[in-house]
Amino acid sequence: MQNKPLILITNDDGYQAKGINSLIEYLTGIGEIVVVAPDGPRSGMSGAITSTQPIRYSMQYKDEGKNLTIYSCTGTPVDCIKLGISEILKRKPNVVVSGINHGTNASICVHYSGTMGAAIEGCIFKVPSIGYSLLNHHADADFSGTKDLIRKLTQDVIANGLPQGVCLNVNIPKGKVKGAKVCRQTTGKWIEEFVCSKDGLNKDVFWLTGRFENDEPQAQDTDEWALANGYASIVPIKTDITAYELLDQIKDWNNII
Amino acid sequence: MQNKPLILITNDDGYQAKGINSLIEYLTGIGEIVVVAPDGPRSGMSGAITSTQPIRYSMQYKDEGKNLTIYSCTGTPVDCIKLGISEILKRKPNVVVSGINHGTNASICVHYSGTMGAAIEGCIFKVPSIGYSLLNHHADADFSGTKDLIRKLTQDVIANGLPQGVCLNVNIPKGKVKGAKVCRQTTGKWIEEFVCSKDGLNKDVFWLTGRFENDEPQAQDTDEWALANGYASIVPIKTDITAYELLDQIKDWNNII
Repeated sequence: MQNKPLILITNDDGYQAKGINSLIEYLTGIGEIVVVAPDGPRSGMSGAITSTQPIRYSMQYKDEGKNLTIYSCTGTPVDCIKLGISEILKRKPNVVVSGINHGTNASICVHYSGTMGAAIEGCIFKVPSIGYSLLNHHADADFSGTKDLIRKLTQDVIANGLPQGVCLNVNIPKGKVKGAKVCRQTTGKWIEEFVCSKDGLNKDVFWLTGRFENDEPQAQDTDEWALANGYASIVPIKTDITAYELLDQIKDWNNII
Repeated sequence: MQNKPLILITNDDGYQAKGINSLIEYLTGIGEIVVVAPDGPRSGMSGAITSTQPIRYSMQYKDEGKNLTIYSCTGTPVDCIKLGISEILKRKPNVVVSGINHGTNASICVHYSGTMGAAIEGCIFKVPSIGYSLLNHHADADFSGTKDLIRKLTQDVIANGLPQGVCLNVNIPKGKVKGAKVCRQTTGKWIEEFVCSKDGLNKDVFWLTGRFENDEPQAQDTDEWALANGYASIVPIKTDITAYELLDQIKDWNNII
């Protein structure tokens, strides 16, 4: 068992979500699977960490025949990765797999995503890391179309690794998947973001909603284009977010004070 | 008043923190200041958004002579920027300024930082955005050494803008500041991250702690080097985190399924 690849799985929808249980099913047999996932929904948690409250974890399920152990954790997706690697696992995982998220994490959604926060955290730990998302936010979404890609890509990453400081943001369209496309993150933004309603005391409250506006809908090398055209998008993303191309241009600020 | 630059300020320590009040003081007179900041501490919130609960905001302070209005918000730093720009402000701000954070956001801390989550959000809104942090996490830290840099750099950014998709992660050492250095994000990680203690029922609980380990302490072009040597670090960071240099190398994945 020690020679099998060790797969650390988390998500941001909680360990009982259909997405993570589909992911477990698709990766069963590839290696030893340890799940450390939030005890409930943590959508939109980005790279958040819990610093002012204690975190707990507890075993929910163990099946030695399946090489599967599931822990729930009271923290964020990033907390799950930190706790998993630092406290729970006996050896360094061969891969961190986060998801399958119920809903898109393409384009700038990568910045809000707890799924991708966890993948980035795995990458900071120098473990090859992948976040998978399906473009369907329903609790009972059909994940079956994601199986082939997830199984093959995860096996490839276990076998060959990823360059240090790079992890993968993989989004998969609903329904039949035409194929996969390696692409870049689309430039865009969310607009009309709030719905205002009244609380029980007739005071205004604001609910985050809105819709995504693509700044470059014609650009065929982007994740949004791939997804809109029936392809899964594979975007390699970096933990070093320095704008290197700008360093020389702004060097006069060395003399600002 | 409509011709004065509009400055949107937030932070992750809450609107009553010393850091944000120092920032307000240093920027007073430069333009119209509107603060939309959390109603309490939101450290380590990264780019988190509030999607399952309503958000509220309320005016805490208004001084027309000082051109200053302060709103508190029940949400995260990113929620504050979204609500500020989409609902509260009557015109687009000329700059988003986040901070002054009590504690470092250099190196990979940029990924966990609510201060920087807010700056990245401003950048997604195509507003020039800056996050400022002082390397002192005490509630009563002395921020006075940050004043010259913050005032000059903010004025420069208001006057000249920033390239689209780029914002600034500015960290400032404690005490006397030797100068500023434009630099890149250091590669590193947090280690020994958890302290385990017992709760009232004698069950294990885990507290996030740890210390930063610099992977490249000799590299003089990094933010950690600048800070360790008495300089403020100015790191331009990107909202497009695609690993462009890898796209060609991994294009075989176009045929993975």
